[in-house]
Formats: sequence, structure tokens, C-alpha cells
Amino acid sequence: MGEEKEDAKEGAVNISLKDLSKKLEEFASARDWDKYHSPRNLLLAMVGEVGELSEIFQWRGEVEKGLPNWEESEKEHLGEELSDVLLYLIRLSDICGIDLTDAASRKLVKNAIKYPPPPKFL
Amino acid sequence: MGEEKEDAKEGAVNISLKDLSKKLEEFASARDWDKYHSPRNLLLAMVGEVGELSEIFQWRGEVEKGLPNWEESEKEHLGEELSDVLLYLIRLSDICGIDLTDAASRKLVKNAIKYPPPPKFL
Amino acid sequence: MGEEKEDAKEGAVNISLKDLSKKLEEFASARDWDKYHSPRNLLLAMVGEVGELSEIFQWRGEVEKGLPNWEESEKEHLGEELSDVLLYLIRLSDICGIDLTDAASRKLVKNAIKYPPPPKFL
Amino acid sequence: MGEEKEDAKEGAVNISLKDLSKKLEEFASARDWDKYHSPRNLLLAMVGEVGELSEIFQWRGEVEKGLPNWEESEKEHLGEELSDVLLYLIRLSDICGIDLTDAASRKLVKNAIKYPPPPKFL
Repeated sequence: MGEEKEDAKEGAVNISLKDLSKKLEEFASARDWDKYHSPRNLLLAMVGEVGELSEIFQWRGEVEKGLPNWEESEKEHLGEELSDVLLYLIRLSDICGIDLTDAASRKLVKNAIKYPPPPKFL
Repeated sequence: MGEEKEDAKEGAVNISLKDLSKKLEEFASARDWDKYHSPRNLLLAMVGEVGELSEIFQWRGEVEKGLPNWEESEKEHLGEELSDVLLYLIRLSDICGIDLTDAASRKLVKNAIKYPPPPKFL
Repeated sequence: MGEEKEDAKEGAVNISLKDLSKKLEEFASARDWDKYHSPRNLLLAMVGEVGELSEIFQWRGEVEKGLPNWEESEKEHLGEELSDVLLYLIRLSDICGIDLTDAASRKLVKNAIKYPPPPKFL
Repeated sequence: MGEEKEDAKEGAVNISLKDLSKKLEEFASARDWDKYHSPRNLLLAMVGEVGELSEIFQWRGEVEKGLPNWEESEKEHLGEELSDVLLYLIRLSDICGIDLTDAASRKLVKNAIKYPPPPKFL
């Protein structure tokens, strides 16, 4: 994936789910946290993060795409909460022995069949 | 990322968050669904999927890592619900203009600083 | 419960949290479901219902108070999902040995102190 | 509410859903908060509280009924989070124009029909 080069400027590589999975495994292992990472513990931790994400949006009424009027600090906070949900989701998948890359690929195919795009007219 | 080759046997490539993001954008665009994809709509859709994920675990008591006694069909269902959460999470990030790859990378660094690994003794 | 009479016209009695708690206990006991009602099982069941509730609101954009344009069947569905959350919440409290009536009363007092009403001017 | 007397010993009155509903309405009105209490704002606020509730349970593994080994301060915290979910749930119902007392009563009847108790043998 040659996009790594493009992203290098912004200081972020083009991360795959498997890269994140590996980093999370090393992180937990280095801290001896594996013992806490049972499926239901991780699921509840993820629900906790979904709650924190929801709190960001709770009193705002409808929010415009791109968040045009948000402070930079609010966007950064949002990025952190989105990340927390992502990281627990990946860790939960791993601990359950589910290949999330594979599962997400299959789900995209399944969705495309379930919801066929409308025909295009000239 | 040479892992694409390894995974080819299993029929799944090593997907990055950006690959998924692009696929979801095309999917929505082809169906004229962009108009439904406001930040709070997507957030609530994600909460809905977190609920479906929780239902899989709700009456089981504590669940062992690797799900040793689960039926293959149950694992497949689990993979679908995990994917649904992931796909809405990615789409929500995009619609908010948040680079989830970048945010997750930063969060990993922040977590490593917040929770330093214990020193290793010989 | 002398208020039963007042409400009888509307076909609903004035239920207390304790009335509901007792009914749920009898319901579980009669079906030998107590064995499934552990704290985390009930919590995840409640999260599942919160997901179903969110699904009702997910693609609607901002919704007006009183739901002026909703079909009667949609409102009935909403009432069922709100009830499901309530019933699991009450059951979870009971199984944890928390008196929800007492806790909610204290929380109202605590909130009133935390957020004092603004002074009224003549 | 003649039950107030019975409960007086325990220091808590027997609160109905309607009592709580009325208190929440007065609370919001006194602070001019009605303008924030739209259906989806309240729903997201409730999801936020469900997240805080989940955080209490997230790293504990399976938890025994009655929470035998919990500190008093942990139980008090739990009571507060359960209450927060309850209060937003009641407020959400009210703002949607749903009579939660009535809806919960109907749901109990519906559940009893859907899941008939097993026959009792002598």
C-alpha cells in the first residue's frame, strides 16, 4: 500500500486493522493486562467509550457534516473518543478470535447484495 | 504491507481504515444515501449495532477467550455485528471530517505515555 | 394506591418503581429465569434494548417534541422499547441490591444542589 | 400514596414514574432547560449514562448478585448511574409524549403472553 508515502507528511501511516491489532496485543502484554481482557470486559469497556462519544453530541441538536463550527479542541476530543471505540472493538474481535478484516470484507459484500445500487439511466 | 499475500489464501486482503472508508463512501454515493449520513444519524445507527452486539453476549455469563464452545454460525453472526459497528464508526469519523487513522495512532501514543509499561528486571 | 382511581379513565394505574420491581421478580421466578439474571447479563440485555431504542431514531434527523408526524404504530413501538429499557433497568437495580426509588430521590436532590435554579426577579 | 407510610422507615417514599416525571419537568422548567430537551438530545444523554453505568462493571469479570464484595461508596456510585439512566429515560418518554406507565404496563402483559409460565406439577 503505497499510500504510506502520501501520509508520511501528516505524520500518520496508512494503518491496517491488523497493524492496530498487533499494537494492542503488545500494549496489553507489556502491562500484563491480558488477564483483564475477557470478551465481556472488553465489550463493556467499549460501551463505556460509546457513551463518552455520545456525550460529545448530546446537547448540540443536529450537527452539520464536517463540524464547521467546532473548536479544534472539540474535534481532537472527538477523535480520541472515536479512537477509543475503535481500539476496544479491535481488541474485542481479537480476544474472541474473530478476524475483523475478513469479517468486515464479507459484510461489505453482503450489504452490496442486500442493497443493490439503483440502475443508472442515461 | 506484504501480508496481503499471506491473507490471499483466506480470501481477505489486509484492509486499511482508509480502504474501508473509501468503500463506504462509494457505497453510500451509489445508493444516494449521503443525505441520511449526518453525524448524529450515524452515531445512533452505531449505537443500534452496539446493541445487537451486546445481545449476542447477554445471557451467556462470562465468556472464555476464543469462544471455545460457540457454534460456527454464532461466530459468523458475531463477526457481522462487530463489522457493523466498525463500518458505522468509520463512516461517522469520515462524515465528521476526522482522520481516524491519524487519531487512533495518536491515541496509542498517548495511552503509552499515560500507562507506562512496568520496568523489566533481570 | 389511591391514584388508581384517577388514572382508571386512561386505562393505566399509577405504577411505582416498587410495583414494577415486584412484578418483574414474580415474572422471573415463575419462569425459573432467576439463574439468567446476573448483574452483567441484565446490563448487556439493557444495552441491547438501548440499541433497539436508538434504531427507532437513527435515520430521522432531528425529531420534534411530541413526535407530531409519527404513525400511531411507530409510537407504540417506541413505547415498547422505552419500556424494555425501563424493565431491565429496574431488574438490574434489584439484582444488585440497589433501591432505585431511594437512589433516584437522592439523585434529584443532588442535582438540585449541583445546578441551583437561577434567581427570580420581580 | 398510602404506601409512603410503610416506606417512611427506610427513608424513601414510594415514588411513581409520574411523580418523577413531574419533578423532572419542574426541574427543567426552573432552569430554562426545556430548549435542550429534544428527543435525540435526551436519547444521546441517556446513552452517555448507560456508558457510565457500563464503566462500573467493565473490568470486574462476572459480578455476584447483591454485590457482596463491593465497597459502600461503589454501591452509591452505582445507584447514581442507575438513577441517571432512569431520569433521562423518563424525561425522554415525556418529551416524546409517551406515557411510560401505560407502556410498561402493556409490555408486562405482552411479555406474559409471549412467554407463558411453565405448567406446575404436583
